[in-house]
Amino acid sequence: MAKDRLIYLPLGGAGEIGMNCYVYGYGAPGKERLIVVDLGVTFPDMDTTPGVDLIFPDIAWLEERKDRVDGIFITHAHEDHVGAVGHLWSRIGAPVYARAFTALHARRKMEEQGHNPDKVQTRQPWPETIQLGPFSVGFLPVSHSIPESSSMVIDTPEGRVIHTGDFKIDYAPGVGEAFDPDLWRSVAKDGVKALVCDSTNVFSKNEGRSESTVGPEITRFVSEQSGMVVATTFASNVARVRTLARAGVDAGRSVCLMGRAMRRMIEASTEAGVLQEFPPTISPDDAAQLPRGNVMLIVTGSQGERRAASAQLSRGKYMGLKLDEGDTFLFSSKTIPGNERGVIAVMNALSELGVDVQDDDDGRYHVSGHANRPDILAIHDIVKPQIVIPMHGEHRHLREHVKLAKAHGRTGVMAPNGTCISLSGNEPQVVEYVETGRSYLDGSVQIGAMDGVVRDRIRMALNGQVTVSVILDEDDNPLGEPWVDVMGLPETGRSGTALTEVMEADLDQALRRADDRTILDDDKLDDLLRRVARQTANQEIGRKPEVTVVVSRLS
Amino acid sequence: MAKDRLIYLPLGGAGEIGMNCYVYGYGAPGKERLIVVDLGVTFPDMDTTPGVDLIFPDIAWLEERKDRVDGIFITHAHEDHVGAVGHLWSRIGAPVYARAFTALHARRKMEEQGHNPDKVQTRQPWPETIQLGPFSVGFLPVSHSIPESSSMVIDTPEGRVIHTGDFKIDYAPGVGEAFDPDLWRSVAKDGVKALVCDSTNVFSKNEGRSESTVGPEITRFVSEQSGMVVATTFASNVARVRTLARAGVDAGRSVCLMGRAMRRMIEASTEAGVLQEFPPTISPDDAAQLPRGNVMLIVTGSQGERRAASAQLSRGKYMGLKLDEGDTFLFSSKTIPGNERGVIAVMNALSELGVDVQDDDDGRYHVSGHANRPDILAIHDIVKPQIVIPMHGEHRHLREHVKLAKAHGRTGVMAPNGTCISLSGNEPQVVEYVETGRSYLDGSVQIGAMDGVVRDRIRMALNGQVTVSVILDEDDNPLGEPWVDVMGLPETGRSGTALTEVMEADLDQALRRADDRTILDDDKLDDLLRRVARQTANQEIGRKPEVTVVVSRLS
Repeated sequence: MAKDRLIYLPLGGAGEIGMNCYVYGYGAPGKERLIVVDLGVTFPDMDTTPGVDLIFPDIAWLEERKDRVDGIFITHAHEDHVGAVGHLWSRIGAPVYARAFTALHARRKMEEQGHNPDKVQTRQPWPETIQLGPFSVGFLPVSHSIPESSSMVIDTPEGRVIHTGDFKIDYAPGVGEAFDPDLWRSVAKDGVKALVCDSTNVFSKNEGRSESTVGPEITRFVSEQSGMVVATTFASNVARVRTLARAGVDAGRSVCLMGRAMRRMIEASTEAGVLQEFPPTISPDDAAQLPRGNVMLIVTGSQGERRAASAQLSRGKYMGLKLDEGDTFLFSSKTIPGNERGVIAVMNALSELGVDVQDDDDGRYHVSGHANRPDILAIHDIVKPQIVIPMHGEHRHLREHVKLAKAHGRTGVMAPNGTCISLSGNEPQVVEYVETGRSYLDGSVQIGAMDGVVRDRIRMALNGQVTVSVILDEDDNPLGEPWVDVMGLPETGRSGTALTEVMEADLDQALRRADDRTILDDDKLDDLLRRVARQTANQEIGRKPEVTVVVSRLS
Repeated sequence: MAKDRLIYLPLGGAGEIGMNCYVYGYGAPGKERLIVVDLGVTFPDMDTTPGVDLIFPDIAWLEERKDRVDGIFITHAHEDHVGAVGHLWSRIGAPVYARAFTALHARRKMEEQGHNPDKVQTRQPWPETIQLGPFSVGFLPVSHSIPESSSMVIDTPEGRVIHTGDFKIDYAPGVGEAFDPDLWRSVAKDGVKALVCDSTNVFSKNEGRSESTVGPEITRFVSEQSGMVVATTFASNVARVRTLARAGVDAGRSVCLMGRAMRRMIEASTEAGVLQEFPPTISPDDAAQLPRGNVMLIVTGSQGERRAASAQLSRGKYMGLKLDEGDTFLFSSKTIPGNERGVIAVMNALSELGVDVQDDDDGRYHVSGHANRPDILAIHDIVKPQIVIPMHGEHRHLREHVKLAKAHGRTGVMAPNGTCISLSGNEPQVVEYVETGRSYLDGSVQIGAMDGVVRDRIRMALNGQVTVSVILDEDDNPLGEPWVDVMGLPETGRSGTALTEVMEADLDQALRRADDRTILDDDKLDDLLRRVARQTANQEIGRKPEVTVVVSRLS
């Protein structure tokens, strides 16, 4: 009989920053009992996923083994960790465990997708543990940019694994638990088999700064402004939102929260008891009645999202408020790579309104929620694991993190999505490569990334689209001329005649010249018409469009 | 009779970084003689301009006045200054003036579009001037990141205007003229009416660094590597390319240039006499024969462009060369905002090959070609203009530059694209707002940005596309069922039946229920079928696609 083993398998999050989903298993090969850490989403972009609503990890591997999955643990309430719980839960079906604040979010996501929110169980932090088959699992508090973030302590017959989740080392995070090195040392003191560790900021050389360092800077900044002040940050960064609100109050301003996510997050944090002493707020209606210098808005949309409050305000009146010359807009946030165009568009629109825009000024008004390179080394040194497995990063982050671990004398293992690692025995080893990928929420439907649906949409965006319609009578002769409609193509090209007319004439000629073998064969006729349409388009406008051919046979 | 006046009108480049096109005029209002400075392009992106090949400023205003345009001056050979010369020249028709190296590029662009390259005249730098109607115009050498960059000295009956073009203050640029403060002071000493000034780096607080500072760093870096070294930068940054090549040679490596733009730029620079002592290079074939540690590749694609050499190398074998574990890739460049996704994709692909990637390390291996905030102030102080007009920037850059000028006691004028400013009289004033915008090179056709062509392509990318075909017989009765084809939509949705089938059934029902008023009216029938198709799609897949309706009437 094969010996039991401990496996680690990332299905998402190790190869991108987003859609986190990690699997741990213990048991005989192929019969391991499994637990899942995080079920997150990532967000689409126009370049690669136009029209897509959300992106999930492909969990086909888990679904096929759902009878062996004993539980799903959510480390914290960021969308890239909890966002897919509602969408993917039914394909796994195991109970979901989280701490109180995170559980609130997970339950809402279950409800939104029509699932029973009671499948989400609230658990207390370490030293409480949950026994699931061969696993004993606890939530170890850690500091991050959202309350109640946790690392997972996963005890197995092969030893202890610590999965950091997202973390930074912050001794004064404002809201949420401070990093407690003594607690961490006590958890690690009897030896840790593997540290599965956040890699996001491995390229950031300087020690990370505490959330508490931005408060005084923001307070000073707000106090220096005379017009209306608007500040944006991630709604889930509850500590920052409170810092911003307090800075407003200290400057004698009334504070107004704008954007659904912002209000909801503050309510949820208060309800869960993780947020105390948030200043009183006023409604946008009330804010509009006050002198501009007495108002501070805290708004969603730090990443330039088109529908968020910041973008709306940059475009004009929003909820009765309109920014103006002399007002100030503070981005208490960093632009996530890839979002630059959107953020810059908002900044320029604000500039056109006469608003002074202040970015984070290289960290003066924002600190990251992730451990920088020295902090990653610090956690390695506190935990002293036998093995470091980098996660939560693009390929380049994971690779750099492995190099960093090795440079400091540790065993570092490269395990991008789909790499199933056995942690049993003396040396970790790859035991299998599992096929992984992405699935999309597309409208109300889940589709696979490789289904070709999005590829066709990209092609239409790049090439335009042509519909060719032909009717053949009972004798297989064309009835009238072919008819052409175009979408996303110039009206006229080289010849100066309408593109549709030129195409219709060329198609008509091709049709009349075609032999019976072509005319009588649907596929051949389709090919001919498509080829002619593309050729003509290429001659006229220098582009080969996507073509839909409609042949109607009256016979 | 109205008094003569001096006007300034940006048609492109003042509201974006790209597609520079500035007009100066002198004469009676509405009868000014005109000159143009720069005719550049900007580049499309998937978010806003999918499928577009190039973006030009809308020069309709100039075209309507082409009989009054006396000349086109090109400051330097970057695409955002010279790129549209070939595409737009025939709509203006005036002679093109440039210095030798820039003229080489302008002539090639004319030839590529079938125009006479002799329309481009090579001129010597200041103190040579060109007399054109009321203007006397000279090319004043200035340092930038491409050889022979020039500011324009434009003498008019109202005084002297200096149009900086792109510039930095670099006393040791390596290739191309150093910034000569004495020359600049002599040009400015009798008073300057207006300084029309580059704003790109107005948010960069620290004094800019010389091109000469990166050489030693790059040399040290290359000498420390043991595998193959690949470096990328803008091909047009000839000084940098030479620095990279020399670093390779100093480290005992043979240098190979890859990418058409890279080879062409070095050839053109050598031909124009602006580049001397470029080390000998070898072919990719030869490079493939050498030990990896003896090779240095200098390649195109610093912005992650999909077809450039860097992206090709990141994807596997390219021109006989394949990167491998132990090789090093240096980005001697900065990522232009908006290009992050592409660059990061290349970095991760390289990481997967085992290649160590080094970015510019906050300026260690790259310096900007534009004047930073202190350097902008320095040029203000050297020129001492009556008026500062910021250009070459997004709205936020122009606005900040105006604030900077005012904070230092100067008159700063905000003039985004389309703002026609009179520089006559005591105070500059806006005399007209001219309609401006963009036009696209789309395949082989020039289209307007507002033509709706690209909007339709974006809609198809976001919503997918449906073709509905219906045949009505001689009695206006449906002949068979409606036929549906979809592109870029999921195959099945809520009901589990094929989307096309559900749509066909719903359309059939709607058609049979429709009254004669609808059936007999093309528009009404089209509307009905489109509406039903969209409703069904929305119910099935939660998305309302673009619909092409084909109704064939046999009557």
